[in-house]
Amino acid sequence: MSEADATGRVYLEDLHVGQRFLSGTHALDERQVIAFASEFDPQPFHTNPAEAKSLFFGGLVASGWHTAAITMRLMVTSGLPIAKGLIGAAAEVSWPRPTLPDDVLQVESEVIDIRPSRSRPDRGTVTARSETRNQRGEVVQVLVSKLIVPRRPSR
Amino acid sequence: MSEADATGRVYLEDLHVGQRFLSGTHALDERQVIAFASEFDPQPFHTNPAEAKSLFFGGLVASGWHTAAITMRLMVTSGLPIAKGLIGAAAEVSWPRPTLPDDVLQVESEVIDIRPSRSRPDRGTVTARSETRNQRGEVVQVLVSKLIVPRRPSR
Repeated sequence: MSEADATGRVYLEDLHVGQRFLSGTHALDERQVIAFASEFDPQPFHTNPAEAKSLFFGGLVASGWHTAAITMRLMVTSGLPIAKGLIGAAAEVSWPRPTLPDDVLQVESEVIDIRPSRSRPDRGTVTARSETRNQRGEVVQVLVSKLIVPRRPSR
Repeated sequence: MSEADATGRVYLEDLHVGQRFLSGTHALDERQVIAFASEFDPQPFHTNPAEAKSLFFGGLVASGWHTAAITMRLMVTSGLPIAKGLIGAAAEVSWPRPTLPDDVLQVESEVIDIRPSRSRPDRGTVTARSETRNQRGEVVQVLVSKLIVPRRPSR
């Protein structure tokens, strides 16, 4: 789906609005959900499967920030091969439904805006919209991120 | 700073625009930065102190998603004592400067909007703006989150 150079990395010039990148998958499990939440989001609906049944979500669900972190991993390792790395300046994230402990997540990213920098001729800002979906194709997270992307060095 | 009930938990009725909540602190270190990034954001400016010196940030920095996760921990454990827990539907996050491996982070949250739900009389949506600052008072993250907050149950 991507148009990359010999290293598999893309520069600002290689991107166009509408371009899509599909990541690999990540299989979640209850152990990962509880481990992340115990460290970063210690609330019983994320850490205690028995107690979670009577709480907001009706069962154990992953922290939204865990979904965001897994999304980043998928984008970095397989989703969006930006030269020099994936460097975000800002992001909007929403979680239309919870991520469940047995979900298998995959991220599809679409380039929705490209703006060369006026002050820094070596780079630009790319806006990407990334949908994280579970194995049923349901969207568990929508992430719109502004990425700093280098221009291809002149030769 | 907060107006909480006997359990230390606040309901929609206890909140007002302009109300602020200050969290405890979290001391980061290089080990934590590398551990988080190795799992969720495996890029050398987050995982390899030597290589990072010649890369974008000029040294090792924490993943923005790590800053976001620590912010959530601080808000959950000490920052914003919402009854029934901190449940976010959506968030906007920006990272005006990088989080460094020896930073000590603290979060100050301000209630900026309160909207009772029209369709669900037992809850409302609260918008909070949370600044995460380092030990020099510099803002490393601004998070604007929409939280689902229950109304106080009638007696």
